[in-house]
Amino acid sequence: MASRNRFFGVNRRVMSAVLAAFTAFAILLPGSALAQTAVTSPLPGWNDTATKRAIVTFVERVTKQGSPDFVPPAERIATFDNDGTLWAEQPIYVQLAFALDRVKVLAPLHPEWKDKEPFASLLKGDLKGALAQGERAIVEMVMTTHAGMTTDEFEKVVKDWLPTSKHPKTGRPLTEMAYQPMLELLAYLRASGFKTFIVSGGGVEFMRAFAEKVYGIPPEQVIGSSGKQKFELRDGQPVLIKLPEMDFVDDKEGKPIAIQKFIGRRPVMAFGNSDGDLQMLQWTAAGSGARFCMYVHHTDAEREWAYDKPSSIGQLDQGLEEATAKGWAVADMKKDWKYVFAFEKSSAAGK
Amino acid sequence: MASRNRFFGVNRRVMSAVLAAFTAFAILLPGSALAQTAVTSPLPGWNDTATKRAIVTFVERVTKQGSPDFVPPAERIATFDNDGTLWAEQPIYVQLAFALDRVKVLAPLHPEWKDKEPFASLLKGDLKGALAQGERAIVEMVMTTHAGMTTDEFEKVVKDWLPTSKHPKTGRPLTEMAYQPMLELLAYLRASGFKTFIVSGGGVEFMRAFAEKVYGIPPEQVIGSSGKQKFELRDGQPVLIKLPEMDFVDDKEGKPIAIQKFIGRRPVMAFGNSDGDLQMLQWTAAGSGARFCMYVHHTDAEREWAYDKPSSIGQLDQGLEEATAKGWAVADMKKDWKYVFAFEKSSAAGK
Repeated sequence: MASRNRFFGVNRRVMSAVLAAFTAFAILLPGSALAQTAVTSPLPGWNDTATKRAIVTFVERVTKQGSPDFVPPAERIATFDNDGTLWAEQPIYVQLAFALDRVKVLAPLHPEWKDKEPFASLLKGDLKGALAQGERAIVEMVMTTHAGMTTDEFEKVVKDWLPTSKHPKTGRPLTEMAYQPMLELLAYLRASGFKTFIVSGGGVEFMRAFAEKVYGIPPEQVIGSSGKQKFELRDGQPVLIKLPEMDFVDDKEGKPIAIQKFIGRRPVMAFGNSDGDLQMLQWTAAGSGARFCMYVHHTDAEREWAYDKPSSIGQLDQGLEEATAKGWAVADMKKDWKYVFAFEKSSAAGK
Repeated sequence: MASRNRFFGVNRRVMSAVLAAFTAFAILLPGSALAQTAVTSPLPGWNDTATKRAIVTFVERVTKQGSPDFVPPAERIATFDNDGTLWAEQPIYVQLAFALDRVKVLAPLHPEWKDKEPFASLLKGDLKGALAQGERAIVEMVMTTHAGMTTDEFEKVVKDWLPTSKHPKTGRPLTEMAYQPMLELLAYLRASGFKTFIVSGGGVEFMRAFAEKVYGIPPEQVIGSSGKQKFELRDGQPVLIKLPEMDFVDDKEGKPIAIQKFIGRRPVMAFGNSDGDLQMLQWTAAGSGARFCMYVHHTDAEREWAYDKPSSIGQLDQGLEEATAKGWAVADMKKDWKYVFAFEKSSAAGK
């Protein structure tokens, strides 16, 4: 990656000048595809590096009538991982933060948690100790705090919680930890006739509670991990009860399986940030015709976080190798993004 | 149902006259919602009975800006069962006809089928004997004939088979056994801002192979029963292999569960034709705000089939009772439809 980054660094100013010239030229040629792009200025939060150019060039290639790579609107499917791709996943997944808060709220109803890990550690304020109980314990805690209510009740609990949540580093509600350049990318793709989907290891009902508001993605385009549910009539009224049992884990091999199951059509573009997204990108890249894969690379320790290999969350090791080998795009947060979050947008714009 | 039908029978001519007067009036008032409806003539294949009026009145109620029952476009979800609701399911399900044909094609590769039921009966030409082996045997046969190939291969097999298929009664390819009034209803709902979904017990990948062409419903809006799949790399190329193991049965209680799982939003309108659709209709009806449920009732022994209670396919017993009790619409094929299939449309129009 080093040589790649250096390359962009050296050429950035030159490229900016070239693009500025193109924009001026485009204004003189209204009606051309170039003019249209230049005037609507897609992706204002992206620096004029090769990553942005790769995205825009690809979208123009597949959406231009008569292009040999033209993709009909019905087939324009773009899939996005969520945690670490559309919003921050550090220091812990947002859904885990929700589960931890739920443990505190629900503790009075569960006196047995005082002697049961990971609940016991957590209730003593020892988050690190709780998380050290291993993945199985964490999954159980998430399942337990999410189950036993109806789907309607769960949606309300999440929607009520989100505005009260607070990121430990920025102090912002967690929904404000969405990446502004990615929100612009979602909007740009939709304006180009793409249907945007989330394909994430996160819980599907958790994500649906905010995806429409935060990302403009309706519930039927959110795919995630899920628990089993039970249909029953309560006083003649049908309800769906969330059970404390996993149904489907939407990660790694699960992602292409979920794409086939829920969408039934191979994506034209796919975006991820970790090895858990690799199979989704492989599946996308292997389709006939033009395909676009991109990894978001966490390189910005100052504005966000810098991590890949040594991280327990969002490990990107094999994926980065494959991206390099196959020429997939890699968005280098530090170099490619003018700003990361909306709340720093105004200050960044003035730079 | 008898009193209901009599009621419509008596009033049909009067109602036709009233509607004709309304239409004439509407033409004098261009720009009004009524004029728009009258001029675009939704549902030409539906007689002007209470069923058609109930549909149109409901759609106008939920789509008219300022109406107390207005539903924003993003929430306009309409779900349809497939077999018996959108196309004919007699004398056997289309997917079963496909599986039976596949047994014949695949028999040379499976010498063991000569001694194994239901394959043995079927290969001897004894369809009745094969189907008499019970549901479990039938499901096994369907699973066996659908599994072992990649998802891409399966899609191609179905797409190649459909034009060669032939309905035993009409001699038409099975895709022509779609109900024309229901196709008009799908188009009318989409023109009114609804997203139309299939929610069927049929195999999801089987239905996706024709749903876009026959119904205008893209794969991501087709929900059905599914088998398990496996992701693997074959010479570095990712494939999804269909396994001979059920994953999810999208019938009865499975329908609201599937709606929650795949759509994540309660339908505003739901359409079915059997007791297997009852829970979907209950779930839809129980939502807050305006909801519309309808059963298609097979009452036309001449143009289609007449069946409900005694039928092994498409039993409609409890559902019809609940429809009457709750005031859900019931489309009486014989009375409510001008024609059933597109191929009788021209002759019916001349009547």
